[in-house]
Amino acid sequence: MDELRTSKFHVLKSDTEPMAQWRITLNDVIFGAESKPGKTFDIILIIAILLSVSAVILESIVSINTPLGKNLYIVEWVFTIAFTVEYGLRLVCVRHPLKYALSFYGLIDLLSIIPTYLSLLVPGANSLLVIRIFRILRVFRILKLFHYIREAETLAEAMVAGRRKIIVFLYFICTLVVVFGCVMYLVEGSVNGFTSIPRSIYWAIVTMTTVGYGDLTPTTAFGQLIASMMMIIGYAVIAVPTGIYTAELSKAIVRKRDVRGCVGCGKNGHEVESDYCRYCGEKLPE
Amino acid sequence: MDELRTSKFHVLKSDTEPMAQWRITLNDVIFGAESKPGKTFDIILIIAILLSVSAVILESIVSINTPLGKNLYIVEWVFTIAFTVEYGLRLVCVRHPLKYALSFYGLIDLLSIIPTYLSLLVPGANSLLVIRIFRILRVFRILKLFHYIREAETLAEAMVAGRRKIIVFLYFICTLVVVFGCVMYLVEGSVNGFTSIPRSIYWAIVTMTTVGYGDLTPTTAFGQLIASMMMIIGYAVIAVPTGIYTAELSKAIVRKRDVRGCVGCGKNGHEVESDYCRYCGEKLPE
Amino acid sequence: MDELRTSKFHVLKSDTEPMAQWRITLNDVIFGAESKPGKTFDIILIIAILLSVSAVILESIVSINTPLGKNLYIVEWVFTIAFTVEYGLRLVCVRHPLKYALSFYGLIDLLSIIPTYLSLLVPGANSLLVIRIFRILRVFRILKLFHYIREAETLAEAMVAGRRKIIVFLYFICTLVVVFGCVMYLVEGSVNGFTSIPRSIYWAIVTMTTVGYGDLTPTTAFGQLIASMMMIIGYAVIAVPTGIYTAELSKAIVRKRDVRGCVGCGKNGHEVESDYCRYCGEKLPE
Amino acid sequence: MDELRTSKFHVLKSDTEPMAQWRITLNDVIFGAESKPGKTFDIILIIAILLSVSAVILESIVSINTPLGKNLYIVEWVFTIAFTVEYGLRLVCVRHPLKYALSFYGLIDLLSIIPTYLSLLVPGANSLLVIRIFRILRVFRILKLFHYIREAETLAEAMVAGRRKIIVFLYFICTLVVVFGCVMYLVEGSVNGFTSIPRSIYWAIVTMTTVGYGDLTPTTAFGQLIASMMMIIGYAVIAVPTGIYTAELSKAIVRKRDVRGCVGCGKNGHEVESDYCRYCGEKLPE
Repeated sequence: MDELRTSKFHVLKSDTEPMAQWRITLNDVIFGAESKPGKTFDIILIIAILLSVSAVILESIVSINTPLGKNLYIVEWVFTIAFTVEYGLRLVCVRHPLKYALSFYGLIDLLSIIPTYLSLLVPGANSLLVIRIFRILRVFRILKLFHYIREAETLAEAMVAGRRKIIVFLYFICTLVVVFGCVMYLVEGSVNGFTSIPRSIYWAIVTMTTVGYGDLTPTTAFGQLIASMMMIIGYAVIAVPTGIYTAELSKAIVRKRDVRGCVGCGKNGHEVESDYCRYCGEKLPE
Repeated sequence: MDELRTSKFHVLKSDTEPMAQWRITLNDVIFGAESKPGKTFDIILIIAILLSVSAVILESIVSINTPLGKNLYIVEWVFTIAFTVEYGLRLVCVRHPLKYALSFYGLIDLLSIIPTYLSLLVPGANSLLVIRIFRILRVFRILKLFHYIREAETLAEAMVAGRRKIIVFLYFICTLVVVFGCVMYLVEGSVNGFTSIPRSIYWAIVTMTTVGYGDLTPTTAFGQLIASMMMIIGYAVIAVPTGIYTAELSKAIVRKRDVRGCVGCGKNGHEVESDYCRYCGEKLPE
Repeated sequence: MDELRTSKFHVLKSDTEPMAQWRITLNDVIFGAESKPGKTFDIILIIAILLSVSAVILESIVSINTPLGKNLYIVEWVFTIAFTVEYGLRLVCVRHPLKYALSFYGLIDLLSIIPTYLSLLVPGANSLLVIRIFRILRVFRILKLFHYIREAETLAEAMVAGRRKIIVFLYFICTLVVVFGCVMYLVEGSVNGFTSIPRSIYWAIVTMTTVGYGDLTPTTAFGQLIASMMMIIGYAVIAVPTGIYTAELSKAIVRKRDVRGCVGCGKNGHEVESDYCRYCGEKLPE
Repeated sequence: MDELRTSKFHVLKSDTEPMAQWRITLNDVIFGAESKPGKTFDIILIIAILLSVSAVILESIVSINTPLGKNLYIVEWVFTIAFTVEYGLRLVCVRHPLKYALSFYGLIDLLSIIPTYLSLLVPGANSLLVIRIFRILRVFRILKLFHYIREAETLAEAMVAGRRKIIVFLYFICTLVVVFGCVMYLVEGSVNGFTSIPRSIYWAIVTMTTVGYGDLTPTTAFGQLIASMMMIIGYAVIAVPTGIYTAELSKAIVRKRDVRGCVGCGKNGHEVESDYCRYCGEKLPE
């Protein structure tokens, strides 16, 4: 979650170590989102990212790439150079360039520009160019811009709080699809398309998650019976992750709600109806 | 939600500016739903709307349109003229005709009659006639009639309260399908039907939402592995919007329940049917 | 729900109007489930119902019906005569035979035996015989036997409590599929299989509910875009009925939990943490 | 759940009946997970299980089995012998060997080794070898290792608490698919692929659970209408198990949270991390 904020790279006035004024200003524009120039920079950046992602997508469509390929090539280089300059500026104005370069966003920022340069060096590395699509992850910065970070944090917090239960659930699902996949491999066999256990497990996942492509379906009566059981299990078992997440999210929302800090011990996270601090027994402010 | 009520166009007796008596009466019939004539008008209107929508639907079936086309044409004109008269009356009896014309229902009401007239002017604009189907949105007025507005409001309130979380979730889903779509474009390639990134993203959405048409399915072992991961993610992640909405709806229902505070102990959160405070036994205000 | 209990046809000793002893005893066996003979009767009945339903199902399988058709015919008549006798006994030992005959179970009981007799009178009415499958509804009596009525009632209570919200939701879904169905009819057209508006609406329902047969899929780029939007809406909107039902069920369960009656006014339904009756202010028993 | 722990086979020092020291030590290593050797043993065991399961899966892929069949055969025997030794040691060091042999894990452990031996005796019993996949159930012991037992128990507890409601729901679903299956058998008939009632019920399950393979789809207009109704029911009814499980899980989580009562005001329901009563400020017991 800290990664999402990226605020750790934002220089604050209270920081002790002095930095050149131009670096502080630049940092404020690039990493901050409170000042006017900071906001403008973020908006321009997000538009540029979305345009460059669109260019990558359009490039993959043959009927568009054939006539407009050259234009898209130029557009691509314009964005790559712009993003390279931006990446350089980020490195320059941050207090710890290496920390930034190795952070989640630092890596994504680098991944956004490298493929274009590599395509010059390695001929035929065009498939590599699709990696540029990861640029879209950069747009997560938009959350910061519109103050959606709190919401993202609450959602993530509930996910983290329920992670052990979710892992147990996923483990249970995995066991179930392996067992059912093997049973179907025995029951239906290669004749009906269940040519190997991995393929049967793939079918079991398609069925259990209620996706149901229909590229592989049971044809024997017994196979259809087992498939029916799987479907009903899959249909009912969706209740488990939903129950886990709903329960955890309700708690996370309630926890967020009360922001009173205790005057005795400074802790917060009290429930709305509490009158006394549950950590030190001090009376809470109204 | 205010749009749903349309009561802002209903003239109330307490309104200061005087209006001719016939306009007030007409307004009461057309916009109100409390008086007997108002209710009758609403019921007739809703039946007319449903009939005209059915006519539009029937018209699209070749085996019905070939023999009965002429009758449906007449029916269509009868409804169009009736709705035109109704639209005119609405404009006449409302205090601010322009405000009504530009409101959600005003536009829908206009959209319900225009296509039929346009088909006279523009030959071959038959495909335009399908727009008449938007008449069905007019039926939302039925909610007002049966006092379901409160329920619709509670549902909408929970949606609004959780909108920021839902946007973050949708944003997360969009990123996921773009990234997975691109990965599958690389892995499966044009040979297996993944001819472009938009088409791969379409496949990713079909898979993630557990729709699973099967018009496009992974054929390589690695593609099936990635697809399996996507399905399990999509299957588990449905828990997020459900959790958000359940949590917000529970709050919205409780909030609706009661706002009375106890005069004895000051506590609130009492159920609507309570007469006495459940904490101190004091009588609650009506 | 009262229908599920069927206890209204169970004669109680406290009933004022006198009935012949054999009728009371018979009533106790057939309608009651507390006494030993009553339980035995219920178990035999349920086994008979399940066997007769299995016979109907087996009859529909050609490879089984061809060699065993005659045996199944005999089995069918044995069950029909047994159920006819049972139906007669029910009519005889109940206080108000007509009331029973017109009740939900009375009609189902009648529907279970009529088709077999009709197949004698009306030749070729074999398709009518499938109606016998409604016998399966008689098995709901098993809930009474195993004391699952309370659970069924809680589930139904939550459904009833949320019915207005669920109707608003279903209404919203219906409008959505009609509008999207029409849009797809325009966009894809007859060439791609969207031959009429009803067929397009059918497609919209298949897509929105995430069933996704794949018998009808969008082929144009714009159609796939609209379909993608529908899928994401359908995927997220499932949260609404789940939210409604979860909220109502939680309330219904809590309501069931506390069974303390107030000594002051006799009302119950207090919350577990309440100390005073919320209706009359009397102190509640611990 | 007790089965999951397997701790009942773990000899404790407080046990009265004396056992030879080497058996106690061995028991500690094999059944315990607290000591260093116990943990090491568990990790090695889980790796061995996963490898042997992978071998079974790889064996089923023709393109891998043809060249590497012999190697996999050797690997299989190595694991079988290792698991046989382990099974013997478990029998030796447990206080009640028979009880262990008949326990859930005891049977799974036996089932993991028997098929390989049987394949020697019974020629052509290769399909039997797939049963070895049940080895994967042994991995559930990993939960004990990483202290996920509590989470698994909470999830199972909620399932158990809601089991009666879930049974009523499943019963309701089964009735619904039987009735709808029969109706579709009548409406669509053999011509459209609905060749028997069981096949129609299979279709009904595929549709109701929103899996939607598309191997069997309604083709008549009336059939599509009924299918649409089923889909909407199936789409909305998923709310029921989710509602049940969410409600029960919330209760199970809260119940787990705390059982401490306040000595000052007697209230309980405090959160686990609380040190002081939130109602009266009294210090809570540790």
